[in-house]
Amino acid sequence: MDRLTIIKVGGKVVENEQELDNLITEFLKIPGNKILVHGGGRTATTIASQLGHESKMVDGRRITDKNMLEVVTMVYGGLVNKKIVAKLQALGFSAIGLTGADLNVIRAKKRPVKDIDYGFVGDVEEVNTSELRLLINENVIPVMASLTHDGKGQLLNTNADTIASKLACEMASFYNVYLIYCFEKRGVLANQDDENSVINELSITKFKGLQETGVINAGMIPKLDNGFNAKKNGVKEVVITNTGNISSGKGTRLTLE
Amino acid sequence: MDRLTIIKVGGKVVENEQELDNLITEFLKIPGNKILVHGGGRTATTIASQLGHESKMVDGRRITDKNMLEVVTMVYGGLVNKKIVAKLQALGFSAIGLTGADLNVIRAKKRPVKDIDYGFVGDVEEVNTSELRLLINENVIPVMASLTHDGKGQLLNTNADTIASKLACEMASFYNVYLIYCFEKRGVLANQDDENSVINELSITKFKGLQETGVINAGMIPKLDNGFNAKKNGVKEVVITNTGNISSGKGTRLTLE
Repeated sequence: MDRLTIIKVGGKVVENEQELDNLITEFLKIPGNKILVHGGGRTATTIASQLGHESKMVDGRRITDKNMLEVVTMVYGGLVNKKIVAKLQALGFSAIGLTGADLNVIRAKKRPVKDIDYGFVGDVEEVNTSELRLLINENVIPVMASLTHDGKGQLLNTNADTIASKLACEMASFYNVYLIYCFEKRGVLANQDDENSVINELSITKFKGLQETGVINAGMIPKLDNGFNAKKNGVKEVVITNTGNISSGKGTRLTLE
Repeated sequence: MDRLTIIKVGGKVVENEQELDNLITEFLKIPGNKILVHGGGRTATTIASQLGHESKMVDGRRITDKNMLEVVTMVYGGLVNKKIVAKLQALGFSAIGLTGADLNVIRAKKRPVKDIDYGFVGDVEEVNTSELRLLINENVIPVMASLTHDGKGQLLNTNADTIASKLACEMASFYNVYLIYCFEKRGVLANQDDENSVINELSITKFKGLQETGVINAGMIPKLDNGFNAKKNGVKEVVITNTGNISSGKGTRLTLE
């Protein structure tokens, strides 16, 4: 099977011009097929605030009311997405910006209201791998914004870490999939205050232990859950790292043992 | 040759939920291959104003400074584009939202500064028909936002009427192209105060006469120039009409004689 690398970039990386350029340079060093998945939460928060909409978060997840949905559609689907696409094209790579609505690539279901009403937030129901594979076969790099749709005309906000994991799981039937979560730090740290304390290999058992002792903090848990889920579903390798190490393979590698 | 209908929708049409639904219903009645081109200027003006950016227009053309480019990238490439795509998907049609940067579909050149500095405005240099034809052959409806790129990483704002005309001209080598400009009125009016005074057929000679006598107003002239340009370049039919008449063929038909 061919190799497919899915990279999720988030936060500061996509919102700083210099970091974004570094990211793209590193990204393009990776051989074989590639998909880039991005959010843009910080910019969304800034733009929302300028438009007079307050950002409400619960456990790091954004409550997406009608106004906030418009903001994330503008920021993720427009501003961040098209900037990345234009930069990839400038370097001679064919890229296409997508949300889950485009070509029906990712269909989701509006999250049912239980204790919390997340608003227009979607839980992934179906990944349309055939359309993505067609693009990849044409040597196109899909650039996925973290937006989905319900198939009934409603756009939905979906966590970018989850989208990357779901894409990786579904594409694992067709490719040797490498999933890279790229964020500000060099990996999962054993000591939050020491950038050099990167855990090179993290097993589920070790993860559970570190969770219990509080070494792994709240924001990291859903990312790692998504990562381990991908590993369990046939994804070849899952690595958590920073921009500078995307192509080197350094960082925290997840293992099932 | 197969039939290809390119519809440009603008202004009020894409910015009113009900009008947009009517547009999409009418649009889908047209048989054969279709491309939809849209702007979103009014929403861009509103969002820009809410963000504290003043919209500056010269002869109906937007001056696009750095802030305004971010706004139009968000509004055209994100908000308006993805809303249309999600609605088409809901009706069972495969659609994909594109800017000129995606798949390098339209490359433009930043307009040189002469009397006026339009800022990040692009004049179309190249339409990549092969990628569009690939999508159309897969029964996908391209939904084009009025944004282009310069191939060096810079996004540019490009008039939607011009994009529709350029696409029509280039695609005329491969399809029988029908170009429809859809706006608020039922066609070009002989009397601006009388909605029933639609000119059914407008030749270049008649157009020049009406321009001299001031019957055709300033905003309409670039649209008609674009339309006649398409006719001269092998586009089968160019019609100016409103949402309700897209599929009926009623409106103002341009002729070369």
